[in-house]
Amino acid sequence: MIIIMERGSTPENRQKVIDLLEQNGFNTRINVGDIYTVIEAFGDKTTVTPGRVAALEGVREVKIIREPFRLASRDRKEEDTVIEFPNGVKIGGNNKPVSIVGPCSIEEDYEGLLKVAAAAKETGCEFLRGGAFKPRTSPYDFQGHEEKALKYMKKAGEETGLLTVTEVMDASDLPLICDYVDVVQIGARNVQNFKLLKAVGKRSVPVILKRGLCSTIREFLLAAEHIMYQGNPNVILCERGIRSFDDKYTRNVMDIASIPVIKKYSHLPIIVDPSHGTGQRYLVEPMAKAGIIVGADGVMMEVHHDPENASSDGKQSLPVPMFKDVMKRLNTLTERLHYEKTCLSANVS
Amino acid sequence: MIIIMERGSTPENRQKVIDLLEQNGFNTRINVGDIYTVIEAFGDKTTVTPGRVAALEGVREVKIIREPFRLASRDRKEEDTVIEFPNGVKIGGNNKPVSIVGPCSIEEDYEGLLKVAAAAKETGCEFLRGGAFKPRTSPYDFQGHEEKALKYMKKAGEETGLLTVTEVMDASDLPLICDYVDVVQIGARNVQNFKLLKAVGKRSVPVILKRGLCSTIREFLLAAEHIMYQGNPNVILCERGIRSFDDKYTRNVMDIASIPVIKKYSHLPIIVDPSHGTGQRYLVEPMAKAGIIVGADGVMMEVHHDPENASSDGKQSLPVPMFKDVMKRLNTLTERLHYEKTCLSANVS
Amino acid sequence: MIIIMERGSTPENRQKVIDLLEQNGFNTRINVGDIYTVIEAFGDKTTVTPGRVAALEGVREVKIIREPFRLASRDRKEEDTVIEFPNGVKIGGNNKPVSIVGPCSIEEDYEGLLKVAAAAKETGCEFLRGGAFKPRTSPYDFQGHEEKALKYMKKAGEETGLLTVTEVMDASDLPLICDYVDVVQIGARNVQNFKLLKAVGKRSVPVILKRGLCSTIREFLLAAEHIMYQGNPNVILCERGIRSFDDKYTRNVMDIASIPVIKKYSHLPIIVDPSHGTGQRYLVEPMAKAGIIVGADGVMMEVHHDPENASSDGKQSLPVPMFKDVMKRLNTLTERLHYEKTCLSANVS
Amino acid sequence: MIIIMERGSTPENRQKVIDLLEQNGFNTRINVGDIYTVIEAFGDKTTVTPGRVAALEGVREVKIIREPFRLASRDRKEEDTVIEFPNGVKIGGNNKPVSIVGPCSIEEDYEGLLKVAAAAKETGCEFLRGGAFKPRTSPYDFQGHEEKALKYMKKAGEETGLLTVTEVMDASDLPLICDYVDVVQIGARNVQNFKLLKAVGKRSVPVILKRGLCSTIREFLLAAEHIMYQGNPNVILCERGIRSFDDKYTRNVMDIASIPVIKKYSHLPIIVDPSHGTGQRYLVEPMAKAGIIVGADGVMMEVHHDPENASSDGKQSLPVPMFKDVMKRLNTLTERLHYEKTCLSANVS
Repeated sequence: MIIIMERGSTPENRQKVIDLLEQNGFNTRINVGDIYTVIEAFGDKTTVTPGRVAALEGVREVKIIREPFRLASRDRKEEDTVIEFPNGVKIGGNNKPVSIVGPCSIEEDYEGLLKVAAAAKETGCEFLRGGAFKPRTSPYDFQGHEEKALKYMKKAGEETGLLTVTEVMDASDLPLICDYVDVVQIGARNVQNFKLLKAVGKRSVPVILKRGLCSTIREFLLAAEHIMYQGNPNVILCERGIRSFDDKYTRNVMDIASIPVIKKYSHLPIIVDPSHGTGQRYLVEPMAKAGIIVGADGVMMEVHHDPENASSDGKQSLPVPMFKDVMKRLNTLTERLHYEKTCLSANVS
Repeated sequence: MIIIMERGSTPENRQKVIDLLEQNGFNTRINVGDIYTVIEAFGDKTTVTPGRVAALEGVREVKIIREPFRLASRDRKEEDTVIEFPNGVKIGGNNKPVSIVGPCSIEEDYEGLLKVAAAAKETGCEFLRGGAFKPRTSPYDFQGHEEKALKYMKKAGEETGLLTVTEVMDASDLPLICDYVDVVQIGARNVQNFKLLKAVGKRSVPVILKRGLCSTIREFLLAAEHIMYQGNPNVILCERGIRSFDDKYTRNVMDIASIPVIKKYSHLPIIVDPSHGTGQRYLVEPMAKAGIIVGADGVMMEVHHDPENASSDGKQSLPVPMFKDVMKRLNTLTERLHYEKTCLSANVS
Repeated sequence: MIIIMERGSTPENRQKVIDLLEQNGFNTRINVGDIYTVIEAFGDKTTVTPGRVAALEGVREVKIIREPFRLASRDRKEEDTVIEFPNGVKIGGNNKPVSIVGPCSIEEDYEGLLKVAAAAKETGCEFLRGGAFKPRTSPYDFQGHEEKALKYMKKAGEETGLLTVTEVMDASDLPLICDYVDVVQIGARNVQNFKLLKAVGKRSVPVILKRGLCSTIREFLLAAEHIMYQGNPNVILCERGIRSFDDKYTRNVMDIASIPVIKKYSHLPIIVDPSHGTGQRYLVEPMAKAGIIVGADGVMMEVHHDPENASSDGKQSLPVPMFKDVMKRLNTLTERLHYEKTCLSANVS
Repeated sequence: MIIIMERGSTPENRQKVIDLLEQNGFNTRINVGDIYTVIEAFGDKTTVTPGRVAALEGVREVKIIREPFRLASRDRKEEDTVIEFPNGVKIGGNNKPVSIVGPCSIEEDYEGLLKVAAAAKETGCEFLRGGAFKPRTSPYDFQGHEEKALKYMKKAGEETGLLTVTEVMDASDLPLICDYVDVVQIGARNVQNFKLLKAVGKRSVPVILKRGLCSTIREFLLAAEHIMYQGNPNVILCERGIRSFDDKYTRNVMDIASIPVIKKYSHLPIIVDPSHGTGQRYLVEPMAKAGIIVGADGVMMEVHHDPENASSDGKQSLPVPMFKDVMKRLNTLTERLHYEKTCLSANVS
């Protein structure tokens, strides 16, 4: 931690800062400049937070040196986290990017869901996704079929051999949801729902954690930290677009660079969701490719058997034939990249 | 709703849009332009959402005419909502702005809390606020004393005659919290925690609903709509700053103009929170005044008996003596404005 | 400057950093931590920029301690800058806030301009503003009457005794403009037009410098620094709203808190422009008041004799009768605040 | 145009809107709803702007149907614009993406520049870029070597056979700059410097127009429209990152999706600049690839013979050996994509 004191700070102010830090096990050094005095604190402690120090009289600003996420950081764990499923599917590290596809909401029509699932299986996808509990901006929007939808998911997963993913919106639904699906998802709007993060952290179920609409990368990794801190290391990050000043042509701005940035600072796998990231069907394929080429460990896409009649997110869902074409091209790309990557690492070692 | 079709849209595309709208009770009109075709839909229906129409083939964009929040809108209810408490305190309408003050977190030291509460009472504040369950960005931060804190709140409220406010982070904590306090608060990070909004909507407890860090005004009012839609009309909005590209000198940017904007579009009361809105002690007074002068129905401020040792948010908390000074000046301002407002309306009528 | 080295940085990397800093007259100190190594550099030099140091191999991040704006900083000049005009009008310090009003564009109709100017004079305003050269987002919008408009401005100023302000968009127009008006304005879109900043900096004409739509406070003060660095100390800052994720109800978000923030870090005067800051006529009065109550040294408002037929910005312009009412209330407020402020300082001294 | 009237608007208000529109050649239709009245205006006119209509009494909001950029729009010109240079190099359409590389600033050391230029030529790049006039946030930063730098550029271009690009910051420098280079660049900070846009629009020199830090896509295309409206159709757009709420790990957020969006709405070529888009050397390669895979017509990268001693932007500049490696991989990618694209279009036709 680096503490910059106000111009008018007194020696007593400075001493108080030093005392607090040293009582908490930090080593300190003080440099009195012409205008500003700077105190440096060394130590890897969590007993005193930067905010606590900032509250002391005469402190202008506290800058941190080490990233505040610890378990999620490469500083603590160099090698990539790989999450492996009972059927052998793996996410992260040098594994081929996975595909997670399905309708925004699970609807009444089971045959429709199965049609999507079959297309997913046929094109080599690993996961079926679909919403049972839906977060909706307006109370007048469709809110999800809940347990009935979970049953459909499980059945479609079993019939096709796909792993299943659904969103959990509230800690109290977690036991029910975990009975039905292989992976839970925490949505963008819940990225700082700390009760939910904790509840998920107390289980070992793999979690797809979506970046919030205005989460900084650091806050995003701190949300993962909340889960990991409770004991669950199986966190899969998901870039799904952030809010910007321009929503005229796309719902959000996909921060594609966040993928290599997060790969540098964290060992966790990260996937992209171009459907929510753009909100436009015609942008799903290019943005999926953009995510994969910069190193994403997977792609999540909304696919619907009849988008014109979807209960939600029809505009951004791929109809099945278009989805199959997109997957063909994505598979070509991922295979090529995977080949380059694994050959490369083989040559290196 | 106004539907703009793509340049290349077909007559069949257009017919499908019209059919969907008419089946749902809308009247439609179509205007085929040189380049774009526009379909207008009239009717006050909620059975078809704009997103549903946007998903149809050939639709470029759907623009809404009426605001999607209905219960919260002045279109439905002209007069200001006023929330009245058993002790006669009122929020909203032509009533004098209220003051809601207290520490960020309720701490071990009950005497400290009481000191703040006494100063609040003495300076004419109506509400004591304090956190029992704390949402924290990092798992290494202090998380709150939970029920013990609620007991302290209740006791301090009773000893001073102040009404009490605390934040609820999860629907499951709601019954417990409602046993202890007069008003519940939903924090910025939970503004789209729809389970929580629903749960709070099913009670009649007054709710302070904070604007999310990246909530648009429309989304903010839709969050209020979720609560009202369940039957609870007692929603108090709270502007507490939004996220911008510049967080160097202030935590957030307070959108002061949102207060008169919301007053124009909604009948709900709205207060300001300059402590979270700025994150800086020296900005609390000016920004409280800015909020009040543009018409806010109250102000919420963090006050601590010993900010240098606060468990959280010390940097932005007012120490008690400074708080008393600030309140003196705020009271002068609110009285003057209240006098102008009520005299003015007396003269008008 | 504080330099944080990458985890994998070598002793050679560190030495290079230290050498560069010491060659440029900084004193340095190095602290080798468990994970990160930190180098501190002391000295008030401008020969080495943070970017230059950041480019060295093995440097993770460079944090600055002192603000990069120097001439604009209170670190260098404690007392408020006051700009005084030949007719005795003063901006800044403990002086009463000034009012700068007029149409967005100067139009064909001189009588219309004069009507506005007369109302301005009558209500105690000090400055008449109006555009002669107009920056417009679309080439299809009205672009200004140039020199003819300047002549109108000068004439209206002389007839009423008001000082005059107009925007300069290009360095080459500056000599012409300075022949006609008392103050030049640099618009939000030109806040980083460095040629223009330099040209204005080489004269002594007072400059109203508007904050850019996405200028951070630091960048805003650095733009002022460009002007001051050339020798012109007469800079008046103007907060006029920044871009946010929500432009549905207001054009921009006015960062009202920037006023007390800038007052803390800089000695320059700062005014507010609620017309551009909100883009809505009904918000001009409340946001003008908000600006003044937090300490703005003036307010700039668009006023038009016939806003329904204005060439530009009619939506946000006040018609003359409404403007007079607004000014009456603003005058009451500024007088009261001025009285409090000057009595207070009198009591203190 | 679609005009939504205020709830309380009068028949007179509506008539005024209709009159204004019809006088300007629009056809209108009015629909009086329960709450809101909507007026539709048909016609492709530029004599009345939406802002002009919005200023009329009783108008709540004006929504546009057709994009306000006309010359830049695919509505007017379906086929891609291709810019061809005398030496046969082409940008846009189905041509292979070009590479534009070089140092941020042209420095004293000509041999250094030549080293970069030679590496560019060797790896198949088409353009050498470098700054002669530098826009710098702080007056204490290096400002460019001006004409001397232009001479170096020209010489290096001639020695290697590369086309040359440099930034123009002010209309008055344009004749000089055009004597030396093949392409002029308008920087992000000047995207709404309308004098400069006009001046460039009056020549036929190809222009690289960078998106502003907070330009919406619509504003960006309107800036291009300013150039085209003066008669210069040779505009090359450049996505170089926009400002977001998170600048901790990257300078800007690259809006990769803007590339396919702009391709849908405009016929102009668009390139990406991952150096400025990210500000980090390690992100240049992945983000260049992301841009290319979504359809960019070229990539611009900063390369320096000695980034540790660069006058500016060293942190984001590639050293020559790294640049050569990156180019090798980019060439593989562009060739593969070009092959797929041209085969595909061959098959289709």
